[in-house]
Order: sequence, then C-alpha cells, then structure tokens
Amino acid sequence: MTYDQDPPRRRFLKAGVAAGAALGASNVAQAALARAPADPQRAVEPFFGEHQAGIVTPQQSHTYVAALDLVTDKRDDVIALLREWTDAAARMTRGETAKPLPADDKVAPDSADVLGLGTSGLTITFGFGPGLFTRDGKDRYGLGQRRPAALVDLPRFNGDQLIPQKTGGDLMIQACANDAQVAFHAVRQLARMGYGAVQMRWGQAGFLAGARDETPRNLMGFKDGTNNPPTADASKMKEFVWASVADAPWMQGGTYTVVRKVRITLEHWDQMELGFQEQVFGREKYSGAPLGKKREFDPVDLDSLDHDGNPLIPENSHVRLSNQASNKGAQILRRSYSYNDGTDFYIERWPPWRQETEYNAGLIFIAHQSDPRSGFIPINEKLAKFDLMNQFTTHVGSAVFACPPGVRQGSFIGAGLFGT
Amino acid sequence: MTYDQDPPRRRFLKAGVAAGAALGASNVAQAALARAPADPQRAVEPFFGEHQAGIVTPQQSHTYVAALDLVTDKRDDVIALLREWTDAAARMTRGETAKPLPADDKVAPDSADVLGLGTSGLTITFGFGPGLFTRDGKDRYGLGQRRPAALVDLPRFNGDQLIPQKTGGDLMIQACANDAQVAFHAVRQLARMGYGAVQMRWGQAGFLAGARDETPRNLMGFKDGTNNPPTADASKMKEFVWASVADAPWMQGGTYTVVRKVRITLEHWDQMELGFQEQVFGREKYSGAPLGKKREFDPVDLDSLDHDGNPLIPENSHVRLSNQASNKGAQILRRSYSYNDGTDFYIERWPPWRQETEYNAGLIFIAHQSDPRSGFIPINEKLAKFDLMNQFTTHVGSAVFACPPGVRQGSFIGAGLFGT
Repeated sequence: MTYDQDPPRRRFLKAGVAAGAALGASNVAQAALARAPADPQRAVEPFFGEHQAGIVTPQQSHTYVAALDLVTDKRDDVIALLREWTDAAARMTRGETAKPLPADDKVAPDSADVLGLGTSGLTITFGFGPGLFTRDGKDRYGLGQRRPAALVDLPRFNGDQLIPQKTGGDLMIQACANDAQVAFHAVRQLARMGYGAVQMRWGQAGFLAGARDETPRNLMGFKDGTNNPPTADASKMKEFVWASVADAPWMQGGTYTVVRKVRITLEHWDQMELGFQEQVFGREKYSGAPLGKKREFDPVDLDSLDHDGNPLIPENSHVRLSNQASNKGAQILRRSYSYNDGTDFYIERWPPWRQETEYNAGLIFIAHQSDPRSGFIPINEKLAKFDLMNQFTTHVGSAVFACPPGVRQGSFIGAGLFGT
Repeated sequence: MTYDQDPPRRRFLKAGVAAGAALGASNVAQAALARAPADPQRAVEPFFGEHQAGIVTPQQSHTYVAALDLVTDKRDDVIALLREWTDAAARMTRGETAKPLPADDKVAPDSADVLGLGTSGLTITFGFGPGLFTRDGKDRYGLGQRRPAALVDLPRFNGDQLIPQKTGGDLMIQACANDAQVAFHAVRQLARMGYGAVQMRWGQAGFLAGARDETPRNLMGFKDGTNNPPTADASKMKEFVWASVADAPWMQGGTYTVVRKVRITLEHWDQMELGFQEQVFGREKYSGAPLGKKREFDPVDLDSLDHDGNPLIPENSHVRLSNQASNKGAQILRRSYSYNDGTDFYIERWPPWRQETEYNAGLIFIAHQSDPRSGFIPINEKLAKFDLMNQFTTHVGSAVFACPPGVRQGSFIGAGLFGT
C-alpha cells in the first residue's frame, strides 16, 4: 500500500520507508497486463471492466466476505455510499489507501495495516441482497420494481441449520487477495466508511490451499471445483454465469452469487474408511478421478456399472447428484474457500452428556450463476435430501446476492440500478 | 505432501498425479541447506536439532496453535504418544504423510488435504503445560518432582477476561507454515493420533501479513516485534530465550512459551486520531520509529522530553512500559500472529441495549523466554495495569508451556523429562 497524499507521503519518504509496495501508475498498468505474475504479492487485478473482478478471476489464496445491512432510509445515502465504495475499492486494488490521508493528525481513513504489502491480486466484489429492494414489505429506496426475478429468496433446504447472524444481508463485499491481511483490510475500510448508513451483519475469513497449478483440495481432502465450467470459455460463462439481460437490463454483465457457510465435522470424517469417503464423493481421493476412471479430468460416466450391476458412481454420491446430467444441464461456477474459526466447546444436552471441543471449520461455499432458480436451488434441493455427504456437513449460514456488472471509470457500482 | 507407502504410491503414479510436491530425500536435504528459498511453498525447516524449530525460526505466514488435555492416567501412554508425535512431525516437515498409509482401504492416518502442496516451511513445536506434571494436586505420571520452577502457573493479571475453553492445556502443538492448510493439517493429524490419550482443549488459526523483508504490522496497523532480541545473536538467545540448565536439566535447549489470545476492538481503534494511536504505542505508525526518532530501528530514548518538559514517549505508552529499561533488563522473544475468527453478534445487557456485530479478531500473542518469572509475568503485570492500549484489548485466552529441547534422530520429544 502506498500513501498518495502529499504530507503523509513526504513523511514516509523522509522516514525512508516509501519503497515497499510503491507502484506508480504506469507500473500498475504493466502489472495488470502481465497475467499470472511470478510473485503473488505483486499481482494486480484491474478493478474496472465489463464484469466485476473476483467472479471469473482465478482464485487468490485468501478471502474475507462480509454482508452488511442498510440502516438508512435515504436513497441518496445508498448512492453516496456506493460511489464512495467504488472509489475506495479502485484505489485499494491499485495498492493505495482507501482514501487520501488527511494532512493533519486527524482520524485516518485507513488502518494502515497493509502498508508495505503488495497489491496481492486484490479483487473487491459487491453484491445486492433482497433487502436493498424490499425489506419487511417496505420499498425503502424506490427500487422494488427493479428487483430481478432471479434474485429470489432462497427456500429452506432440508437439514438447514441457519444461524440468523450468519445469514442474509442487504449488501455483500467480497475481498480476495493472496494475503489474509490485504483481504480483510479492504472490507474493514469499506465497512467503516458506511457507519451510519450500514452496519455489519456477518464477516468471514477464508483460505485456499496453495497448490497453484492444481485444483485445490478442501478440508475433506478432496479436490474441489474439478467440474467447474471453464472460465476461459466465454460462451459457457454467458450460458451459466452471467445474468440474462431479459430479466433485469441493469444486471447485464452481472451474476447471482450464493454464499453458504458449511460446517464440516472433520473429526468424524477422519474416522471414515478411504473407500467410503470415495463413495461419498464419487471420486478417487488422491487422483481426483471419477470412480471408474483414471484421471481427474476424465469425464464423469454416470452409467458405468460394477460387476454386480450397481452404479460405479453411487446413486447418493455428491458427484452424481450435483452433475450437470442430473440437473437438466445446469451448471454453477463454484469459487469456494475453506474456513477455520478455531474450536468450539460444547456440552451435549442428552445422554451421554459428553463435553468436547471440536473444530469450527468447513467451507465457505460460493457459487456464481446466471439464475439461482435453475442453478443452485434445484441442485441443492437434491443434495440437501440425498447427498451422502450430509452426514458430515451442516449449512449454518446462507445468503444470495445480485452482483451487478463491472464499473466504467467515472461511474459507480450499481449505477445502472439507480438509473444514473 | 507425498505418500511413501508402496501401494498408495503406485496408485498415485498410476493416476499420474505424483509429480506435485514430490521431494526425494536428497532434494529435501538441499532445500534445507538453502536458507530462505525463493518459493515459500517449497521451503523446508529441519525438524531435528539442538532446539525445536518454530522458536527462533523466521516467522512463516500462518500458524495453527492447539492445546490438548491428557485424559489417560498411564505414563506409558504419554510416552507412546510423544514417540508417535515425534515420528509424525518429522515426516510431515519433510512433506510426507503423518504415518505410512495402509495397503488397503482402511481408515487412512492422514486426511490428504495437503497432497500436492509443498512443505511450506512447516515447523511443529511441542510444549508441556503444568497439567503434565500435576493436576488437581495429583501427580498422574510421576513427573511432579521434575516440574521446572520456571513453569509457574500464570497469575491473574489486571483486566484478564479469560475464557476457560481458550485457556490452559496439558500439551501444546504449534504448527507454523507458509500455507494455512499445511499448518492446520499438521495439528489435525497429531490430535487424531492421540484419541484416547488426549482431547482437544482449544485450537486457534493465525496469520501474519506477508511483508517478507519488513517487520510485520498487526491489525492495529503498527509494526510488531521491532524491539525483539535478535535471533541471530546466540548470546542474546542464551540470555533471554533458552531455559537455564540449573532449574531443570532436561530443559537444556528448551524455552518457556506464553500464549495469550488478545481480542482487539478494531472498530473502536479505527476511530482514534493518528496522533493518539502513536501516543498509545510510543511509536510513529507509518515508519515504526520511536516517538522523537526517525527510523524504525533507532534506539528507544525514554528520557527525551518535548517543549513542555513532558516525556516524548508517554509514561503509559506500550513501548515505554514493555521496554527492557523499564523491566530490569528483561526481554522476551515475541513471535505473535494475528487472528480473524469472523464476527460475533452481541446484545448489550444494559441500556442502551445496542445490538451489534463486531469483529472477532486480534492477536495470538506468543512469547518465548528463559524464565516467565523474569520475562512475561513482570512485564505484563505492568502492562495490564498501566498500558494505554488496554482500552482496546482484552485478554481472553492464556496458557504457559515448557517447550523441551529439540530431538535427536531416533529419540523423541521430551525424552529427557521421562529419563529415557
């Protein structure tokens, strides 16, 4: 991060610490052109563009996702906040402070904890929850008529154990970066800016195992995301990820994002036999190949049978139930992270009244799609009922957002929605 | 991680995924020789040696620290577990599975979630809490007489708000690595191995901002660790970090480690003026220089006065109170990490009964010293009473451990304590 206001910057130079991550404007452009730079700390992802970054962007190693509730009744407050956020997000992805620093020793608009760190491939993605359009039947900002039909309230799924304080939210900010502190820093500055207009609803840190050239493994030890539609294939992205224009013209170039906090009973999972774990997933654990195949990217063959005439990929396996062929051709783009919030202590309320400490860890499931009604909802309805994996997973948080298209320089996030 | 047992390995090779992080024995040795390798994912820290790794080792970017309670009454169980842990820890730091994999599809002794990842500079550090020696007045393993005088129970400090489930523990495992998943993986496998003999008491993930060549900044935005005794200075390490032989001969080459979970009210801190924040620390925020000085490593001058004759470094500032000159020359080696466990929702129990979501984030303070009675305890007694920073920090977890010396090949961690 660099500080670009004159007095503080002079102060840095004087103190001899300005070197760090200092990226001049031309360096930034160069860095953005060079895809996949050698040093992940120096990577730069452009903020402006047709689509928001952080959706089809290759996954960075860390995320911080937050949902905020609007507490203002004024449409102009929302617009002002979105303008301010846009400006600050663009600055931070360039490695600058969230706002220019004041010349005096007033309260600084940036916590400075990323000073000296690189841009770290920071992306900041904004989303609009149902509450921006209507809440408790009230159209607070005159946007009710513009709510896309695709931005449905998620139904209750079988087995859902949603915690209200980890669920929903009027606005989403997802920051992803190759450094945990850079990701959290971005959300923290944006949340501060909104005091009075928004308040935090929930925030969640996540991480990704660092194998750069392979599909990352989740905490269950299996590769996660193998069967994703390829982000380099524009026609697939158009079909499965980017919102349909017909539904809500202002969403052209946007997507719908589902976030689920899925707690995993790792202690229990670890006691399962390897063969059983593979039946649950429908894939080999180590190679990632679909059962009956050799390699990770071999096509999933749902028809192949074993010697006894049973399906090689079990009926209730995760791969079969979530496969495109089982879901009328539907696909979603998963971009999930693991989370690790330490441990929880609990006392059983029924015999044998065990007292135990268990991992508070699992998956921040994040999926982008053109329409949740044909994407996440029908797929998860099936999974929630039949997936063998449900013995080991509990959905404890949930949210859905319309992520508007990317921003042109000079405009702001969601400008199309507000008709400005 | 590589899998070295024959059948599973053949399986990998057959599946064509063995490449990944595969490090042959000679590569491992080479990597260990090359200090500070270019790719942090490929770094290797030797497990065996005079001291345990992870104490004076340059900090990796992630940690997972856990404390476990012994639930067995048999001394032999403890010894067997420590032998098993030693073997597994050495294997994992070399990039291998925790144990050799079985030839069949039984329960695997490794969750495989780091398969394909590099060694990532993994270090695993073990510690012995007071409960290994005596608990509830009972000497469970015949070790009571061998408890070092320096392994004191920490006193209650002013302002402590310790949560029992985040405090104490008979055994500590700290894993540090340049990948969050690699660090957690190590603790998870070791904890599993101990089922029946130990149970988890608490576990905590932590991270460090990624500036490789600078003192890292904590979440308050200040550099943390500037005034640490230099780890390259063997005489300073002998004086301040390594345990005195006179106290307990089996601790020669070991150290005493204090862990404190310090929650920080970031929202509150962010509203403070820059000048005030600097008064709290006694340092400039951006440069890290002591107040009145220019550069981070300029010596702290506690005597300099401002125009009005007041100390430039305030009486109640963190730097002054924790400085060696204020503590009879005492120094401790801090090796702390930040933590970020998302957000908590709370309802005030007194007017105005605010309902708010706040960050559950702060510092996993970790400090090594030759004797807590001259190190952490007197320093923190002063800080707990007078430090201006206490307005923003709450200590919610606490533990102290005797970390035994390093292990010779063929021996096991803590062998000296058990007299074997």
